Amino acid sequence: MRFYSDNTATACPEILEALTRVNTGRVKAYGDDEWTRELDGVFSDYFGREVRAFPVVTGTAANSLSLATLSPPYGAVFAHQQAHVVSDECGATEFFSNGARLVLVPGENGRMTPETLQAALEAIPVSVHTVQPAALTLTQATELGTSYRLDDLAALTDIARRHGLKVHMDGARFANALEFLGCSPADMTWRAGVDVLSFGATKNGALAAEAVIFFDPQLVRDFELRRKRAGHLISKSRFVSAQLLAYLQSGVWKRNAARTNALARKIGAAAGSALLYPVEANEIFLQLEDAGKRTLRAAGFEFYDWGAERSGCARFVVSWDQPEADVEALCRALQSLSRT
Amino acid sequence: MRFYSDNTATACPEILEALTRVNTGRVKAYGDDEWTRELDGVFSDYFGREVRAFPVVTGTAANSLSLATLSPPYGAVFAHQQAHVVSDECGATEFFSNGARLVLVPGENGRMTPETLQAALEAIPVSVHTVQPAALTLTQATELGTSYRLDDLAALTDIARRHGLKVHMDGARFANALEFLGCSPADMTWRAGVDVLSFGATKNGALAAEAVIFFDPQLVRDFELRRKRAGHLISKSRFVSAQLLAYLQSGVWKRNAARTNALARKIGAAAGSALLYPVEANEIFLQLEDAGKRTLRAAGFEFYDWGAERSGCARFVVSWDQPEADVEALCRALQSLSRT
Amino acid sequence: MRFYSDNTATACPEILEALTRVNTGRVKAYGDDEWTRELDGVFSDYFGREVRAFPVVTGTAANSLSLATLSPPYGAVFAHQQAHVVSDECGATEFFSNGARLVLVPGENGRMTPETLQAALEAIPVSVHTVQPAALTLTQATELGTSYRLDDLAALTDIARRHGLKVHMDGARFANALEFLGCSPADMTWRAGVDVLSFGATKNGALAAEAVIFFDPQLVRDFELRRKRAGHLISKSRFVSAQLLAYLQSGVWKRNAARTNALARKIGAAAGSALLYPVEANEIFLQLEDAGKRTLRAAGFEFYDWGAERSGCARFVVSWDQPEADVEALCRALQSLSRT
Amino acid sequence: MRFYSDNTATACPEILEALTRVNTGRVKAYGDDEWTRELDGVFSDYFGREVRAFPVVTGTAANSLSLATLSPPYGAVFAHQQAHVVSDECGATEFFSNGARLVLVPGENGRMTPETLQAALEAIPVSVHTVQPAALTLTQATELGTSYRLDDLAALTDIARRHGLKVHMDGARFANALEFLGCSPADMTWRAGVDVLSFGATKNGALAAEAVIFFDPQLVRDFELRRKRAGHLISKSRFVSAQLLAYLQSGVWKRNAARTNALARKIGAAAGSALLYPVEANEIFLQLEDAGKRTLRAAGFEFYDWGAERSGCARFVVSWDQPEADVEALCRALQSLSRT
Repeated sequence: MRFYSDNTATACPEILEALTRVNTGRVKAYGDDEWTRELDGVFSDYFGREVRAFPVVTGTAANSLSLATLSPPYGAVFAHQQAHVVSDECGATEFFSNGARLVLVPGENGRMTPETLQAALEAIPVSVHTVQPAALTLTQATELGTSYRLDDLAALTDIARRHGLKVHMDGARFANALEFLGCSPADMTWRAGVDVLSFGATKNGALAAEAVIFFDPQLVRDFELRRKRAGHLISKSRFVSAQLLAYLQSGVWKRNAARTNALARKIGAAAGSALLYPVEANEIFLQLEDAGKRTLRAAGFEFYDWGAERSGCARFVVSWDQPEADVEALCRALQSLSRT
Repeated sequence: MRFYSDNTATACPEILEALTRVNTGRVKAYGDDEWTRELDGVFSDYFGREVRAFPVVTGTAANSLSLATLSPPYGAVFAHQQAHVVSDECGATEFFSNGARLVLVPGENGRMTPETLQAALEAIPVSVHTVQPAALTLTQATELGTSYRLDDLAALTDIARRHGLKVHMDGARFANALEFLGCSPADMTWRAGVDVLSFGATKNGALAAEAVIFFDPQLVRDFELRRKRAGHLISKSRFVSAQLLAYLQSGVWKRNAARTNALARKIGAAAGSALLYPVEANEIFLQLEDAGKRTLRAAGFEFYDWGAERSGCARFVVSWDQPEADVEALCRALQSLSRT
Repeated sequence: MRFYSDNTATACPEILEALTRVNTGRVKAYGDDEWTRELDGVFSDYFGREVRAFPVVTGTAANSLSLATLSPPYGAVFAHQQAHVVSDECGATEFFSNGARLVLVPGENGRMTPETLQAALEAIPVSVHTVQPAALTLTQATELGTSYRLDDLAALTDIARRHGLKVHMDGARFANALEFLGCSPADMTWRAGVDVLSFGATKNGALAAEAVIFFDPQLVRDFELRRKRAGHLISKSRFVSAQLLAYLQSGVWKRNAARTNALARKIGAAAGSALLYPVEANEIFLQLEDAGKRTLRAAGFEFYDWGAERSGCARFVVSWDQPEADVEALCRALQSLSRT
Repeated sequence: MRFYSDNTATACPEILEALTRVNTGRVKAYGDDEWTRELDGVFSDYFGREVRAFPVVTGTAANSLSLATLSPPYGAVFAHQQAHVVSDECGATEFFSNGARLVLVPGENGRMTPETLQAALEAIPVSVHTVQPAALTLTQATELGTSYRLDDLAALTDIARRHGLKVHMDGARFANALEFLGCSPADMTWRAGVDVLSFGATKNGALAAEAVIFFDPQLVRDFELRRKRAGHLISKSRFVSAQLLAYLQSGVWKRNAARTNALARKIGAAAGSALLYPVEANEIFLQLEDAGKRTLRAAGFEFYDWGAERSGCARFVVSWDQPEADVEALCRALQSLSRT
């Protein structure tokens, strides 16, 4: 019973079938095919305004290409200290931007706050002697399975705007946050002050498909050249675009997120006082003794120890294809653990 | 009747089906799945010695990650002046290596020669004042649809070796060259002095799958970190690895290359004196008057004008799924053109 | 009465005169002159073992070239969170290394400790998913005017060694630390585990001259190409080398450091409880009320407010050419302040 | 009798004395001193319009910082194939710009022509698949000791402008070209379409001083951050600025250039048919047999063999401090050679 990550999941049938559906005819490569050309329109409908949408195959590519477009090499990019761009992309932000610096912003439950962001900004003087503030990146849902509320986003992007920063959202688990908030894609992005979005589909049912969404069309030309240069312009683009189209048009994005969020909430509830952070997406973080971990593993549950500092933390992620039985078994096991 | 590029093709059924076959169970992400782990063995068998094989999704990624592993930032990378890394990757080599320089080596029919390589090497003194020779990259088959003979490869890699250069092969159309030469994968690579190979499958029937093959295992650790950092480590790796496994194990690689080579030869023969370069893979380059191009396009043939300098050049590429009827029609049209 | 920085100082007569002394004859450029060739020998004597010494003109160049030589692009460089490379070089480390990451290590009084370094190292798993530990940089004297003891250095470099890190020392105020410790240059560098040293002379009396000292000769070739490529190989090298020779051979390095350290100690003593950190070089950091600062400034003392977070901190630096009267006046003013 | 390079020369007394003159008082560092602040005004007078002037210490820094400000990482920078940025800066352009590509433009006598530039531009399609034209760099005087005429410059920069390129001038030997043309600094720069100039002083009598001159003030902020980040913001800036002020204000720039040009012309005339290129600055390139070179060297003349391709080429450079006797002796020797 694997709870390692939503990356361990299979691909959703609706998405896999779409590959077969587009597998017909010789079409122009590098995005000049009918399906890729459809993306702008489909995503514009989804977001309730005109956007530009570009397919890529990894979240790291989506994030780092976006940030390189938003920050000069001498820029500072403000990120939560536990963000994926900080700890799980092997310095991709630095590589793509030619050395922009990630400034680590603290905050409880994986979320920075207006106060912590403000403090981080104020620590950097206007000067040629240090990197200069350029961009803010917000992860929604966060790396700790929580979600910013719309007010939180507005407050943070407002500070960013006043300091001249562009705003990026890492939406590797975008659908999960959206389901949790119950708001529209527009509300959680451009209406909340986001300029560029990494829109994730892979973790929620695709094979390998993410979209970079630009709410500010001026940045697009730079992005397109950077994408090609980084080897992230797929020649047979139809096979990535088809995944994104199927993901949006079949409603898979919503169905899967709703399901994994609900299952994750059950696990969180079963965990009782072991629960470290509120469950606001499809991830659950628990404080467990070594003995507890051993018991769970002996019972066939697979999960990662999490975090170098915080010994005892365990992460469980519910995948879109997680059998309900796995979740029920885990709930029972956790309840039994907390009784001991 | 599209002859734009082999990138316009569909995916081969054997490969598409493999995606469904591996779409089962929650498996570890980022290459730690059973199919990805199989790659080293399968490619070692293919190459007749132990190799390390890493899946990526574009040729640009395969080439530039390889070259970044082989060259320091102040290195010179010797490439044919019409190589893909020179003209079609938007400076990816420079980006991934942090500024290594492509030194353009001339040569007829898309091939450098021992003399032109030697001359290019001798033009660079040992000095801190200029970039220092680091790597040689050979495209096989070349961008002009020709193939190096084994003796050519040996002579070039021998020069490289004596100057301390590592050798990379851009094998975006590896199978086509191999079919043309009728030799073994070993003969055309490590036995000919190649250290790292970009092994292409996308153009020859995959959706998006290339493998970087290391014949020198010492370089692997650096490569793996660069790949992740560049956003080219796919989370659900099974879907790329499955393509490569199917490509090799089903014999698709050979069948498709044999077919497209044969069809291309037919077109070349039909073109008569318009043929610019010998047809030694699946590409045909023709010298055509504007009137001739118009006639062909009016008859429904789609192809690219080629090259900025050489006006009048047209490129035709045969895809693995090209209907035989397309090819026959094109042959007739060319024969008719040459009679006028 | 300026206490802004030791960068505000003039050049020492011994050093300025050396420029005139070498201003004779047409000599080979780019370091192939008799004075530059002398550097290796003179610095080898100074450090009591064979070293390689390379002149550059700024501390930022010395530090970032050194660190780029020690760290791959995906490396983590461990630095105290208040180090100059962190806050005062505009991301030069990231630029020169193509995106290595500075990992900020905390510690009282500008010094990291074995515990804080160990914790920072342990927070980074061996993995392709995050930057990998590559180098440690220690500032001696530190940015807060303190100095590591020899035991501190040994303990820190020992941890570094065990984790496979190379060790760099930022010695912008090397002579001040050396004077404070009263040890030999060998003791404070290679005997303490340092691989590469930025040896500063500018702040202590030169016009613009620093040396990068390699205790490990294997790294030298890479460094030399990086230096040229970064525009830091001076064509008329004699004018930088002459400064370094005069600095060492005239004893200026020692005389100036002894004087500024002593004057700084006086100021520290006069400051009483306002003193924030022990005075172990030529810098004094004071906790002052706004009123106190205004009083001092009204009396003609010029100094910087220091630090964005720590309001109330003021930095005073004693330059080699600081009039004794300035210092006496400052001492009186501080004593008078503390009485109010 | 050394004719290796004008980099072998001493510093001019007027410039060396200026160092002593400014060596007084503790002044703010990093360019906030009275002499550095004077530069904008003095250079504005020199160029007959408002400019911004920034001191650096090497030509490589001046060139590569300028070009990094003018070109994105995916940009193409058009340079003559024998330009200094191509062959003598170890890839600094690529490093500072994070991988912009130098496109080599041919042309007789070290000068590109409107035709060769136009052809190079037209070879690059508007596309994401290849680097996109960003900047033109012109060397004045050229690496072969020739100078562009004002009409040449206008024609080239006009092409650049029409293709959206910014224009940089590498003026390492600016004064020599100016003296040769007998025009004003304004005529040879902004009136001829130059946006940014590397204004050299080192080769013509300074110790280590170049200025980057911006005729377009919008680019300045980016430049300043890049300069600091590259370690090229000198802390005790006064010592670089003083050189530039003395260079301009004493008339040394003109006197030295006039002298070295005149002496070079004499040598060129004496060389007869061995002369390879017209002498339009302070360099002379000769076609010499091995025997001829040996004879000259035996007679005490020191000079470089030049160029890897062109065997037999020898370069002689006249330094500002070259004894007239050296030149007379060389003339006699050359005349004697040509008689044999």
